[in-house]
Amino acid sequence: MEKKIRLGVLGLGRIGIMHVENILAMPEFEIVMGSDPFLSEEREQTLKQMGLASCTRDPEDIFSNPDIDAVVICSTTDTHSDFIIRAARAGKHIFCEKPIDHDVPRILDAVRAVKQAGVVLQVGFMHRFDTHHGALADMMHSGKIGDVEVVKITSRDPAPPSMDYIRSSGGIFVDFMIHDFDMARFLTQSEAVGVFATGTTVCDPEIAEQGDFGSGHAIVKFENGVIAVLESTRRATFGHDQRIEALGSKGLLTDDNVFQNNVHFYDAEGYHTAKAPWHFQERYKDAYKVELQAFAKAVNEGTPSPVDGWDGLQAVLIAEAAAKSAKSGKYEPVEHVEI
Amino acid sequence: MEKKIRLGVLGLGRIGIMHVENILAMPEFEIVMGSDPFLSEEREQTLKQMGLASCTRDPEDIFSNPDIDAVVICSTTDTHSDFIIRAARAGKHIFCEKPIDHDVPRILDAVRAVKQAGVVLQVGFMHRFDTHHGALADMMHSGKIGDVEVVKITSRDPAPPSMDYIRSSGGIFVDFMIHDFDMARFLTQSEAVGVFATGTTVCDPEIAEQGDFGSGHAIVKFENGVIAVLESTRRATFGHDQRIEALGSKGLLTDDNVFQNNVHFYDAEGYHTAKAPWHFQERYKDAYKVELQAFAKAVNEGTPSPVDGWDGLQAVLIAEAAAKSAKSGKYEPVEHVEI
Amino acid sequence: MEKKIRLGVLGLGRIGIMHVENILAMPEFEIVMGSDPFLSEEREQTLKQMGLASCTRDPEDIFSNPDIDAVVICSTTDTHSDFIIRAARAGKHIFCEKPIDHDVPRILDAVRAVKQAGVVLQVGFMHRFDTHHGALADMMHSGKIGDVEVVKITSRDPAPPSMDYIRSSGGIFVDFMIHDFDMARFLTQSEAVGVFATGTTVCDPEIAEQGDFGSGHAIVKFENGVIAVLESTRRATFGHDQRIEALGSKGLLTDDNVFQNNVHFYDAEGYHTAKAPWHFQERYKDAYKVELQAFAKAVNEGTPSPVDGWDGLQAVLIAEAAAKSAKSGKYEPVEHVEI
Amino acid sequence: MEKKIRLGVLGLGRIGIMHVENILAMPEFEIVMGSDPFLSEEREQTLKQMGLASCTRDPEDIFSNPDIDAVVICSTTDTHSDFIIRAARAGKHIFCEKPIDHDVPRILDAVRAVKQAGVVLQVGFMHRFDTHHGALADMMHSGKIGDVEVVKITSRDPAPPSMDYIRSSGGIFVDFMIHDFDMARFLTQSEAVGVFATGTTVCDPEIAEQGDFGSGHAIVKFENGVIAVLESTRRATFGHDQRIEALGSKGLLTDDNVFQNNVHFYDAEGYHTAKAPWHFQERYKDAYKVELQAFAKAVNEGTPSPVDGWDGLQAVLIAEAAAKSAKSGKYEPVEHVEI
Repeated sequence: MEKKIRLGVLGLGRIGIMHVENILAMPEFEIVMGSDPFLSEEREQTLKQMGLASCTRDPEDIFSNPDIDAVVICSTTDTHSDFIIRAARAGKHIFCEKPIDHDVPRILDAVRAVKQAGVVLQVGFMHRFDTHHGALADMMHSGKIGDVEVVKITSRDPAPPSMDYIRSSGGIFVDFMIHDFDMARFLTQSEAVGVFATGTTVCDPEIAEQGDFGSGHAIVKFENGVIAVLESTRRATFGHDQRIEALGSKGLLTDDNVFQNNVHFYDAEGYHTAKAPWHFQERYKDAYKVELQAFAKAVNEGTPSPVDGWDGLQAVLIAEAAAKSAKSGKYEPVEHVEI
Repeated sequence: MEKKIRLGVLGLGRIGIMHVENILAMPEFEIVMGSDPFLSEEREQTLKQMGLASCTRDPEDIFSNPDIDAVVICSTTDTHSDFIIRAARAGKHIFCEKPIDHDVPRILDAVRAVKQAGVVLQVGFMHRFDTHHGALADMMHSGKIGDVEVVKITSRDPAPPSMDYIRSSGGIFVDFMIHDFDMARFLTQSEAVGVFATGTTVCDPEIAEQGDFGSGHAIVKFENGVIAVLESTRRATFGHDQRIEALGSKGLLTDDNVFQNNVHFYDAEGYHTAKAPWHFQERYKDAYKVELQAFAKAVNEGTPSPVDGWDGLQAVLIAEAAAKSAKSGKYEPVEHVEI
Repeated sequence: MEKKIRLGVLGLGRIGIMHVENILAMPEFEIVMGSDPFLSEEREQTLKQMGLASCTRDPEDIFSNPDIDAVVICSTTDTHSDFIIRAARAGKHIFCEKPIDHDVPRILDAVRAVKQAGVVLQVGFMHRFDTHHGALADMMHSGKIGDVEVVKITSRDPAPPSMDYIRSSGGIFVDFMIHDFDMARFLTQSEAVGVFATGTTVCDPEIAEQGDFGSGHAIVKFENGVIAVLESTRRATFGHDQRIEALGSKGLLTDDNVFQNNVHFYDAEGYHTAKAPWHFQERYKDAYKVELQAFAKAVNEGTPSPVDGWDGLQAVLIAEAAAKSAKSGKYEPVEHVEI
Repeated sequence: MEKKIRLGVLGLGRIGIMHVENILAMPEFEIVMGSDPFLSEEREQTLKQMGLASCTRDPEDIFSNPDIDAVVICSTTDTHSDFIIRAARAGKHIFCEKPIDHDVPRILDAVRAVKQAGVVLQVGFMHRFDTHHGALADMMHSGKIGDVEVVKITSRDPAPPSMDYIRSSGGIFVDFMIHDFDMARFLTQSEAVGVFATGTTVCDPEIAEQGDFGSGHAIVKFENGVIAVLESTRRATFGHDQRIEALGSKGLLTDDNVFQNNVHFYDAEGYHTAKAPWHFQERYKDAYKVELQAFAKAVNEGTPSPVDGWDGLQAVLIAEAAAKSAKSGKYEPVEHVEI
């Protein structure tokens, strides 16, 4: 068996705890230390019981620790670039939650620091690692549907987050549809050239007051001529709705919703499936583990990151063009940046 | 266009009215006369408004009418054999509702009279003419699943008929499962050699008091080695449940339930189809027309009846063996009879 | 029974023949005369055998015939407005194939002539009369999904028409997506305010040379805040692909593709459905009859046309805005016109 | 966290290796020692690399080891009873692969030894622990379908085992359908009173020469009036086919096949799912872990075994009655035995 990768985890909030729980059950890793400036004693106690022995409030304790091979960044988005740069300079491999940053120049600084240090940077677009999405991608990439013409992605969360979250989210395109911009790039294997985006506010007038949408829609054009039609909606009373379809010269692929089990119930109203998964954490439960296995593989085998800094950057650039389009009412080009 | 076949309809109850309605809209037929000994003036009025000009209470008016080419027998089962014999002797083609009779010697008399007269006799096993069942049969018969091993048929009605009906029905195997005995013969293209049958009475203790079952189950063995596993149940709260599957050396065919439309509704409980059809009349709406088109074709083109007297006889012979097995608790051979 | 509506059929090409065939089997109508300036003797012979006794090459024979109550216009689009005006002035009710015209002022002339004459005008948007789409519409309109937020329609034909057809079609938005503009209006029960449209030409570079798209995509905003996301694609190797979904505050409705039957085949590759219907004529076989039943009802009962001139006009106005947007790269407002 | 249960694993063949692999990744257990009289040096080396440090050829090394709390019996069926008795006498809890034995008196000896020793005995009917089957069972037991009338189970393996295996298997009812006899008892929560069984040999004439069936069929009657209709077939070219349905006074529950993912491919032949799982090891991958978690729970918390000796005995008694019926051609009562 490979030597275990020794991790420092930066950020121990909801998503950090989830990663810690997954990592503790994975043979590929051991966690040396976790850090969070706002770590409560109660949370520290919980983490100890889970098996995370050492915690700190100062992230520098992690960057300066020579026994740590790699970091997992789960802190707030505004800290990502800084943490990536510090980790890269300390020669540590980096797994970073999406997005890298909301600010393109800061992303460039981070990505360039990673390039210079020669460490692995993987961005947390876990959708790519879902069994179903992955199977569709494999079939597309192997030519099953011939020349691809259209890709459609529907992403719906069960209920809107708090208004506080909405206000600081950067808007639905940057915060939510970014997953689908990344997925569309992954599926089409091409770069986006421009985007038209808009949305509705039927779901909640308060969202409208923030200048944001309850349901965001975008049409993205890619260099290879493919169009992606994307929807991200913050309210779907039936739970997580996550579907992909791709049409090509030889046929159509669809990736339908998953349900909790295969049992159907028939009564006088028709027949009824099991419930859909509710939260994205439930829907992407396995994908969160698989992306970390892929990270371990890249670190151990020196292979390229499956979702690198360039990928992280491009998703943000498309999101920014979408946000711009939603304001201008025009098709907007996606900015080109060299790294 | 072919000359219209001139029909006499014997029996103007529920099923007779349905046939009259279908026939009046079919270009292949015209109805010369209908007969029913218990015809009320009200019913006669309704039939006139539907377009059936001439009615009688005496069936002999039909048999002796030289302007009638063929009869459709929808009267009570105890009259079928007699009517078949009289129609055959009058040189008229015969479409007869299932079953031909409950009594094997009387069936033999009828079938032999038909043979001697050289007229067409078609028995009303409309299941054979359903689009979905027919597609499955075509695929089986073309070798799609290779050597067939097992055929399974599930037939469920929404709710039991009245106790009066149950009492005079001849029991679930003769009254209800007879459709599936015929379908199993049609699918396997082989003759039944024996049957084990039993059932449950969970659905209604009154049915048990009649010595009958609410849910009848049979395992039928065929000459070619295929086994058919059949269920006929008198209560399925979700409506008509009619499914077939066939397993062979190259794969499996299933013929699933139909629903009123393809619309699905998603809510927090999962997703939900439209309703299933409720009555067999709704489920087999089209098949009732298609079987009469097939009858017209056999009469006009002199081709063999698609469901002839031999078919009608065999279904009754299997049903009788099943009824015997349900009493004896043993696998019972199906009687062999020459015609 | 109601008195039969006496029809004149204008245009006896492919779609005209289909309507004639349907009408001849419908008790609501009788066809007095058909007209087509290019009618071949062979075609006239065929029509006679089908049961259409009287044919002419001069449409005036129809407009001036006092025994004709209503006309069915199936001639080329450039004749529609003129025929509508002449029929209206002759006091005849009008069923007209879609679109009314490609030219808005001519549509206005036609619609105003109808209004003045007080006759029924129904435009042939048969999608509204499909069982499945109709069931979805009924559920939406009855509040099943609460406040509607998003409507999505996917329409795909199996293969592109000839380049000659493409050239004279008016482009994919006017020729093809017009059905979905109408359907979106029907579902949302609201008027379109603006549209962004674009497309791909992966499917056929010759289509690109015509300045048209193989796959057209539009985002339409409605007065009530709903967004419709529409796709019309000219190539889907699996046959007709016609799906609708609608998301609202209480859930999601989907209207899935239909298949030729419910039989599934399982082999080592998974399981496999029956084929989808191929042509739109096959997919909308029943809808073409139901729309004429609705026309008969409007004529006989004096009720409003289910798809009137206003509807026909609006669909064209949205299509024109879409075509404009596809050229300008901007969201374009839908023109407002009074009739 | 609970103290880890220290295990000895008896039998290190195919199924033993699978259990070892699962157990090594479970926090509930540690494996102290494995034993197999036919253990090759190569296999021992493999096990060491997997993490099983200590192996022996003498099972007594396990029974006499005071550091072992429980045993997992994966050896050949003829050793099960003896090993259960020796483990029970040594005060060790027992997880034993199905069936306990082919011989009823030997089963009784084993079950009585367990009872006397007061240890936990769990029989390896893993189907009960499948997510989908479990969800159906929960819904049935909570009254979702009211009074249950009929339970149907279809179990199909992709391809027959070797003739050597068939010859020593005890026949299809004892070897294969035993899972479904157990599942039917679990679902109906009732005891079987009698069974009719038969089968086909279309699949392989060599199987017929052994007096066995390629496809076994049974109708089992339960004390509470429910009928179970069961099929076990050794050839299904599409992979593992495992479906359950249950009909009751309030509706129907079905538990459909699982597929490797939710991706569908559409082409001119229809649409196509992903493959079904092939081997039962793949189909019941998770269930094999869940049953051991349940065993750990029973051991740690002193709760009753979820599948105890009585369950193991009853399944064999029904299987024996089925095998007898298949020979006699009669419905055979299930033997009653006290423990």
